[in-house]
Amino acid sequence: MGERYDIAIVGSGPAGLSAALNAKIRNKKFIIFGNKNLTNKLVKAPKINNYLGFFGMTGEDIKNQFEAHLNSMDIKITEERINAIYAMGDYFALMVNNETYEATTVILATGMEYSRPLKGEEEYLGKGVGYCATCDAPLYRGKVVTIIGHNKEAEEEANFVSELAGLVYYIPMYKGPYELRTNIELVEDKPEQIKGEIKVDKIVLKNRELETDGVFVLKDSISPGQLVPGLKITDNHIEVDRLMKTNIKGCFAAGDCVGIPYQYIKSAGEGNIAALSAAKYLDQKK
Amino acid sequence: MGERYDIAIVGSGPAGLSAALNAKIRNKKFIIFGNKNLTNKLVKAPKINNYLGFFGMTGEDIKNQFEAHLNSMDIKITEERINAIYAMGDYFALMVNNETYEATTVILATGMEYSRPLKGEEEYLGKGVGYCATCDAPLYRGKVVTIIGHNKEAEEEANFVSELAGLVYYIPMYKGPYELRTNIELVEDKPEQIKGEIKVDKIVLKNRELETDGVFVLKDSISPGQLVPGLKITDNHIEVDRLMKTNIKGCFAAGDCVGIPYQYIKSAGEGNIAALSAAKYLDQKK
Repeated sequence: MGERYDIAIVGSGPAGLSAALNAKIRNKKFIIFGNKNLTNKLVKAPKINNYLGFFGMTGEDIKNQFEAHLNSMDIKITEERINAIYAMGDYFALMVNNETYEATTVILATGMEYSRPLKGEEEYLGKGVGYCATCDAPLYRGKVVTIIGHNKEAEEEANFVSELAGLVYYIPMYKGPYELRTNIELVEDKPEQIKGEIKVDKIVLKNRELETDGVFVLKDSISPGQLVPGLKITDNHIEVDRLMKTNIKGCFAAGDCVGIPYQYIKSAGEGNIAALSAAKYLDQKK
Repeated sequence: MGERYDIAIVGSGPAGLSAALNAKIRNKKFIIFGNKNLTNKLVKAPKINNYLGFFGMTGEDIKNQFEAHLNSMDIKITEERINAIYAMGDYFALMVNNETYEATTVILATGMEYSRPLKGEEEYLGKGVGYCATCDAPLYRGKVVTIIGHNKEAEEEANFVSELAGLVYYIPMYKGPYELRTNIELVEDKPEQIKGEIKVDKIVLKNRELETDGVFVLKDSISPGQLVPGLKITDNHIEVDRLMKTNIKGCFAAGDCVGIPYQYIKSAGEGNIAALSAAKYLDQKK
C-alpha cells in the first residue's frame, strides 16, 4: 500500500494522455496506467488528417509527438494492468496483480478494444471467474484451473498458477508458439460458455467441455462495467454528462469508452474536460 | 442567392476549424465563416501546454500550425459576419450584409466573445433594433439612427448609413481615432437602455438621452440566442447533447458556446463530433 493519489488515470490513448497533461498543469498528484506504446489503435493508423494542427502524418508520427509532449512535461506511464476498481466512499482502490493503488478520483480512458464477455462470464465473476490469475491462484491450490489467454503475457500467469494448481488448462485466443510449462494442458478450442451451480464447475468449448473449478480470463483490457462495479453503462458505453462525470462520485471517463464517434481529438478534448472536472472535485473536497 | 451548401460553419476558432477538416474529409460541400486571424483568443495566448501533441508553443505558433493545416487541405475562410440564421424547414438561411447564404445544416462555433445585450436590445430586436446597418439603412431614409460600434469596421457602416439617414449618432465602444464623415455626430458615452413604445424611440446613455428611430448594435459577434431565433440556451450556453445536436433539427454547435471548460482541444474535439453528426444527418436525408 503506497501513497494516495489525487487522480488515477486508466488508459494511455489520447483521452488518458490529455487528462494527464491537465492533471500535471493543475498540480495534482496523479498516476497514469497504460502501456509505453500508448495505444495500438493510434500506432496502426496509416494517416491521420483530422487532428487539428497535424497533417500528412502517420499514427506513428503522432504517437511520437505525443511522447515528446509527455517527456517535455516529465509524465511517465505506469505499465500495469488494472483488474478491478472499487469505490470505497472517500477514495478508489485500484487492484493490480501484486499491488493496490489508492486515488481520490479516477478517470477511465480505457478505449473500446476489449472483447465481449463470454456467456456466463459476468454471472460467475467472483464465483470462480476472475481476471487476475496471480492474485487468486492461492484459492486454487490442488484444483483445476482454466486460463483463457488473450495475449502472450497470459502464459506467464499460467505458468505461475501451474505451480499451485492441480491441473491447468490453457486456451489461447491468439496464434502460437506458446511457452508453457509441460504440466499445462494446451487446449486449442473456442470457449463458448461458463457454467455452474453456485460456483463455476464447467466451461463449454466448441468441441468439448472441461470440468474446472475456476476460469481466468486474461484480456488486454476489461470492459469498464466489469472493471468498476456499479458503473452505469448505456448502449455499451460509460454514461457521462457534458463534464465527463459518471454516475459514481469522483469517477470520470473520457474517450472511446464514453461513446461515438471514435476520434482522436474528440478523445483528447474529453480527457481535458475530465481532468479539469476531477481537479474541481478535488478542490471542492478540501 | 448562390448554391446551397451542405454545411455552413459559423466561427473560425478551434471548433469551427476542426469541423471544417472533417466536413472536407467527408466530402461535403461546406463554407466556413470567420476571420483570417482565426481567433483573437488563440493569437493572444502566451503559452499553451495542454493541447496534446503541441508543447512549448505560443498561441501564435499554434495558430500558424492550424493555418498550415487548412492550407494543406485547401480550406478557405469566408470573411463575412453573419447577422442572423433562420431555420427554413429544409435548410437554413444565413444573412450577411449584402447576401444570403443557404445551407442544409449549420454548425455554430461562435465562441463566447460577445458582449451582453443592452437593456431593451432583445425586446426591440426587429422593432428598431438591428445588427446590420447596411442591410436596413433604406428603412431609415431621412430618419435618426444611432449606431453603437464595437469595432473599427462599424465606422464604415456608419458612413454608409449617413448617406441616407437624416441624422446619425455614433457611439464607439472602443478607443479612437475615428474616421467618420463630418455629418455624423460622435457621442462618447455609455449606452444603458433602449426604450420605446411599440418601436424604439429613445436610447438612454449614462449622461444623456438621444431621441432615435433606430439603433444598430455592431458587435464582433452576436450571441447565439440572438443569432438563431428559437435556439435553446441554458445557463448562457447553447444546449447540446453528446453528439452536439441543438434543439433545432440540422443545427449543431461546438466549442466555448456550448459550455465550459473553455479549452482549445475540447473545442476541437467537439467540432469534430459536430461535423460527423452533420454528415450523418445529411446522409440520412438523402
